[in-house]
Amino acid sequence: MKVESGARVAFQGERGAFSEEAVVKLLGDGIVLVPRPTFEAMFDSIDENAADYILAPIENTLAGSVHRTFDLLVESRLSIIAEEIIPIVHHLIGVQGGTIEQITTVESHPVALAQCERFFHERPELKRIATEDTAGSVRAIIAAGDATRAAIASRRAAEIHGGKVLRGHLEDNSENYTRFLLLGSSSKISDAANKLSLVFQTAHQPGALFHALGPFARRGINLMKIESRPIAGRPWEYRFYLDLQASALHPEVKAAIAELEKLSVNLRILGSYVSAEIFSAKAN
Amino acid sequence: MKVESGARVAFQGERGAFSEEAVVKLLGDGIVLVPRPTFEAMFDSIDENAADYILAPIENTLAGSVHRTFDLLVESRLSIIAEEIIPIVHHLIGVQGGTIEQITTVESHPVALAQCERFFHERPELKRIATEDTAGSVRAIIAAGDATRAAIASRRAAEIHGGKVLRGHLEDNSENYTRFLLLGSSSKISDAANKLSLVFQTAHQPGALFHALGPFARRGINLMKIESRPIAGRPWEYRFYLDLQASALHPEVKAAIAELEKLSVNLRILGSYVSAEIFSAKAN
Repeated sequence: MKVESGARVAFQGERGAFSEEAVVKLLGDGIVLVPRPTFEAMFDSIDENAADYILAPIENTLAGSVHRTFDLLVESRLSIIAEEIIPIVHHLIGVQGGTIEQITTVESHPVALAQCERFFHERPELKRIATEDTAGSVRAIIAAGDATRAAIASRRAAEIHGGKVLRGHLEDNSENYTRFLLLGSSSKISDAANKLSLVFQTAHQPGALFHALGPFARRGINLMKIESRPIAGRPWEYRFYLDLQASALHPEVKAAIAELEKLSVNLRILGSYVSAEIFSAKAN
Repeated sequence: MKVESGARVAFQGERGAFSEEAVVKLLGDGIVLVPRPTFEAMFDSIDENAADYILAPIENTLAGSVHRTFDLLVESRLSIIAEEIIPIVHHLIGVQGGTIEQITTVESHPVALAQCERFFHERPELKRIATEDTAGSVRAIIAAGDATRAAIASRRAAEIHGGKVLRGHLEDNSENYTRFLLLGSSSKISDAANKLSLVFQTAHQPGALFHALGPFARRGINLMKIESRPIAGRPWEYRFYLDLQASALHPEVKAAIAELEKLSVNLRILGSYVSAEIFSAKAN
């Protein structure tokens, strides 16, 4: 059990969003879903006591890192409790009784539209409309009851809003996964944790980042991911995020962190948790 | 002279875009401006022989890296010839004869809107409309001749499209700079080059990235920036981009690159060039 039964979990998007799919995959049905329109509103929901946890997308295998999540996570006091990975399968969704031949416009989030280039190449007459949200686009076209409008979203969005799947697997690249982080106020680390995320800044000197990675490299701790983000108000200085294959409870890892603490500024452990199963057998 | 007189230089956006400002700052007025609506069209303009060079934004000190440019650069055969940095100063622009009191909606690119939060906080009644382009929004409101509509864009956009600056310095954070890369087909390196950009992939093993940085760190070559991008079709594998304070012509740097070549896959020198003057005295 990753969270208590009945816990309230906020996600960005409307009902039926890919994020909702990830919440249900990670936590099952025994929780209360709290949809929020923006990333900021999702993070605020915990301070407002409207949610106990949030599930935020952190990375997509095609689009890359979700920087808004990195920035809001470091500004918050939340810790990473778990992660989840879901495949992103895009569906073309229309109104009940409609057909694929009737549609003239397709609405979705710009990233979703961009991931279905092959489909739009086949149907160059279709007009693409960028919207805020995949699932919200489904709700909008169903509410309008217009058979000339379709949306690109998850199958779950079609089910929730009563849409009809006109075509499945619209995505160009099947290796399309999004990784999500479950964030909460507790920083308790499970004995099963095998992944560690942390953030720090380096001094402005030759080799500073290299030296910062040394404590982990010398101990054979695998660096899974490195991400740099600008620091607002300090041009050309960066904050680094590392994902390491390690538990923060392990003595060797604690020693490496203590070493890094001396070499860096504003070090913070974002969480140590169980890594999600990597879906694809083709990943390596 | 960075490019030949009369050279055609493509940029993303409409006339008056911040990118155009950067082109003129870097190359002066003796060149032909080639505006292109999208990043893809900008990169295509060289293959289509519609431009000799392109100037692409690579990084903003608040929003971070421009990933589309990283991805398109690595897919292209272009090299980095020079870089330029400009401050991003946002102006509220309306129609001639209009006043700030008359406006009810403000249009601009979502990043520009997000960088003027303080202004919108003061004027909560204003409706924000996200558009494709800062300068294009100015053109649109001037064409409509509607005093209730304003746009956020550069001063240059107001001058080119005949708009009236209703207020200057709308940006929340004055440390707002964008760095651009001048890209072209030549890979000739200037004797004055003091910066080096390269891209590579690492093997999937503990410490791989650490070892890849070693050849530079051991020689005291400063790593200015590191960026990771996902590789499409290979989930959880990354391509790394490094900016180093070094000339590719220096023998020590050549030795470091030769070492990295053995430790990495698909190494490519993106360019070695003269670093742009960093504007801000507050940068360090």
